[in-house]
Amino acid sequence: MAEAATVTACVLIIGNEILSGRTQDVNLAHIASELNEHGIQVREARVIPDVEDEIVTALNFAREKYDYVVTTGGIGPTHDDITADCVAKALSAPLYMHPELEALLRRREAPPEIMEVRLRMARVPTGAELIRHPLGPAGFKVENVCVLAGVPSVMREMLAALLPMLRGAMPVRSRSVTALVTESQIAGPLGGLQDAHPDIDIGSYPFAKDGRYATTLVVRGTDETKLESIQTELTRLIVAAGGSVVDD
Amino acid sequence: MAEAATVTACVLIIGNEILSGRTQDVNLAHIASELNEHGIQVREARVIPDVEDEIVTALNFAREKYDYVVTTGGIGPTHDDITADCVAKALSAPLYMHPELEALLRRREAPPEIMEVRLRMARVPTGAELIRHPLGPAGFKVENVCVLAGVPSVMREMLAALLPMLRGAMPVRSRSVTALVTESQIAGPLGGLQDAHPDIDIGSYPFAKDGRYATTLVVRGTDETKLESIQTELTRLIVAAGGSVVDD
Repeated sequence: MAEAATVTACVLIIGNEILSGRTQDVNLAHIASELNEHGIQVREARVIPDVEDEIVTALNFAREKYDYVVTTGGIGPTHDDITADCVAKALSAPLYMHPELEALLRRREAPPEIMEVRLRMARVPTGAELIRHPLGPAGFKVENVCVLAGVPSVMREMLAALLPMLRGAMPVRSRSVTALVTESQIAGPLGGLQDAHPDIDIGSYPFAKDGRYATTLVVRGTDETKLESIQTELTRLIVAAGGSVVDD
Repeated sequence: MAEAATVTACVLIIGNEILSGRTQDVNLAHIASELNEHGIQVREARVIPDVEDEIVTALNFAREKYDYVVTTGGIGPTHDDITADCVAKALSAPLYMHPELEALLRRREAPPEIMEVRLRMARVPTGAELIRHPLGPAGFKVENVCVLAGVPSVMREMLAALLPMLRGAMPVRSRSVTALVTESQIAGPLGGLQDAHPDIDIGSYPFAKDGRYATTLVVRGTDETKLESIQTELTRLIVAAGGSVVDD
């Protein structure tokens, strides 16, 4: 577990379609931003296939190491939707038919054999709290594991409903400086600045801008006053190295 | 290790900027598609921070479990670029200054203190092969670990140069059917079809289309004749369930 002042999370993205390259994941960036705003830092993410052993292993690893685990994907009614079963297995918390979800799913009529598979989506592990949202059957949170849909529009609704259920600490804020400068020009003093401020994370991201080398420096930390003083220091350091700051 | 007929890979995406949500990763989908075309199946991906212990642990896990490991990110000259150091540590293959990379990096003049940090990018682990590409300093492959840039345009050039260096098997092909049908309507027979063909992977991906429920079914496997017969079977199954096939 992380120290008390920091709340951490791991995101598990479950689905063969992400690993095959067929589907571009867009959920991680959104979850990471939203959790951070709530004061929870995503420290790791894993993309894993629709395979029970892999999912159970990843769940057990992540729920021990991080304060929260957020999963996406695998909660529909078809044969490849096995997330709830895997969470139940990992936590030894057997699935049961949740009456509220059952009632919701029975509201729309269907032949018995269709209703039967639809009701797979009403199963939650013992002890789970529902993550209710307007778009359909709820996700759920059981212990520190939060189970969300994979479809981005549904995932976003569930995440918004989940956040108030989570304990947060201080959000990590950032400041950035973009400059016409190569990483090599500033790497020396930049490393010195990072060493002097271990509580702040300084990242350096190079790119090409109109055929010239440019670098965006991002400072991240919880103390905004400090971030601003380091941002000023970065600007000074860039100019001293012969670079010029540009608008982001 | 996987069975001989299948070649597997794990992708390690290294970088705090992906975990903070600041940067949307686009490398995984590209790497997964390209590796698959070459007959290598991506079975897992991990997004990990710029932290030595985390990177070394992930490298050692992945290089034992999968045929190949492909990393992105952390190969520039700044303090947060520690991928080469971590690979050297994980493989007990000390870094040395590669003469070809050194010559390339010295071609553009710079003051000594800037050249010194720039030359960090010439360091490769003992035994590494270079992954040469036209956009700048090479990536490298050492044992089964392949180290690529994080900047997408550079990563793509490196990956194209890497592919001929890798052993591939049969690429996984896919066929899909999109239909106005809910997952619950077809989940029963779909599960039966999957059970009857364990060598084929059938995925079901629901979405909303013009306010109606729709589902794309994707069949994946190496035998194209079989994929086509299952695609036909899927169409029959959808129509029998009261759904209608639409154009993708």
